[in-house]
Amino acid sequence: MEPGHKPLVDDDGIGAGYSYPRTPRMNVLLVLLGVIEALGVAAIAMVCYWTAHYRGGFAWDGTGQEFNWHPVFMVVGMVFLYGNGIIIYRFLPRLAKKKLKLAHAIIHKAAFVFSVLGLVAVFAFHNATGLPNVYSLHSWLGIGTVVLFNAQWVLGMSTYLLPFASRWIRTLFMPYHRFFGLVIFAMSIATCLMGLTEKLLFTIADTYSSFAPEGILVNCLGLTLVLFGGFVGYIATREDWKRQPLPEEQPINMSIE
Amino acid sequence: MEPGHKPLVDDDGIGAGYSYPRTPRMNVLLVLLGVIEALGVAAIAMVCYWTAHYRGGFAWDGTGQEFNWHPVFMVVGMVFLYGNGIIIYRFLPRLAKKKLKLAHAIIHKAAFVFSVLGLVAVFAFHNATGLPNVYSLHSWLGIGTVVLFNAQWVLGMSTYLLPFASRWIRTLFMPYHRFFGLVIFAMSIATCLMGLTEKLLFTIADTYSSFAPEGILVNCLGLTLVLFGGFVGYIATREDWKRQPLPEEQPINMSIE
Repeated sequence: MEPGHKPLVDDDGIGAGYSYPRTPRMNVLLVLLGVIEALGVAAIAMVCYWTAHYRGGFAWDGTGQEFNWHPVFMVVGMVFLYGNGIIIYRFLPRLAKKKLKLAHAIIHKAAFVFSVLGLVAVFAFHNATGLPNVYSLHSWLGIGTVVLFNAQWVLGMSTYLLPFASRWIRTLFMPYHRFFGLVIFAMSIATCLMGLTEKLLFTIADTYSSFAPEGILVNCLGLTLVLFGGFVGYIATREDWKRQPLPEEQPINMSIE
Repeated sequence: MEPGHKPLVDDDGIGAGYSYPRTPRMNVLLVLLGVIEALGVAAIAMVCYWTAHYRGGFAWDGTGQEFNWHPVFMVVGMVFLYGNGIIIYRFLPRLAKKKLKLAHAIIHKAAFVFSVLGLVAVFAFHNATGLPNVYSLHSWLGIGTVVLFNAQWVLGMSTYLLPFASRWIRTLFMPYHRFFGLVIFAMSIATCLMGLTEKLLFTIADTYSSFAPEGILVNCLGLTLVLFGGFVGYIATREDWKRQPLPEEQPINMSIE
């Protein structure tokens, strides 16, 4: 704990939250948040440019143009929105906790919608062109990731947004919510990397090994996803950037916890 | 912090270490360690069976049989040994800290040796058969992972094994050592998943989509690697299983930290 921090707890049992002064470390946080957004936007730009320029663009007709929505939706939903949902508490530390929790839930619900649309795109493409479904490691891990992500969302909402769970339950469940949130996020990025690998070998296997520009672009997209995930994980796990409970959010009885 | 825990610090500034009684949670740890070893051994058995039974076995002659060492060495080194090196502190909490640190360093050095041998195997195979090197996302992320892993090892040894770093430096650097240790471990597993995907599409692209047994085996290997990584990450990040400094390891001045 750095000098100037004092331990506080809030209604969800976030006992490790500390009040932070405006220190150089907070400026570091702002720079890192900027880097994360730059990486996220770059990843979306790269996946859009790849599918639009090299893979024939977009449609919703069962062709490869419908498939192209799959990587775009997955990068937007299961990486960009998922990552931003994780770190929303660091972005807006002055916002009331209830609003932040709602924003966290809504952003992740949007991520889930994108992931479902991404799955519809690939299943529709496979079915229309007679390709089999769900045989690859990419698909196994990907579907597992989306299922776990949704389970995590339902459990999180039941525990922290609905009023039924006791403070004891909320406190007990929080480390698991955080741990699985980050593990499923890592699984999501690993699934993307496998998907990029698959698509390149399906389409440009003959030129990928001679450093075709499309291959280099997609490799850079993959590395950008890894960097984005690494920075999100870093910000999410650093103790000294945890959100400070606002004065009105601190429970009255703080004697023993 | 659970009842019965009292905060302690040791010479490396592990201020979050707590003394733990023999509680049911410690039995949970023992079960989880057993699960981890079972998953690790299963992964090694699967990668050996895959390469020996389906991919023609092993040799050191520039053929595909030399390549076969690549997945085996990487799973043994960069997953099994790497993961076990991370959690060695949980396995042997009663061993003196200096011996544990030495074991941690030796296991990870062994992992690095396996990774170098794994790289030699794939480069030798590529060069002997005229295949280009280092064009795929798998290779980019993989080489980056091995380089970062070695940098982390050198920094860790310089800081915690050699006697030069002050306690202040050791304490300051510890969260980064832990964070990057787990991130590079996740990168390592993600690289394995891409490698499995690549190899299946290079060899059984025509039967993979009709659920060939080899494909199912390798998919299961991939999921086993993910589970292994998840359990290692869980044990490594739970506060209440952190190793307790032995009485003789506690510094004399504990007044302010």
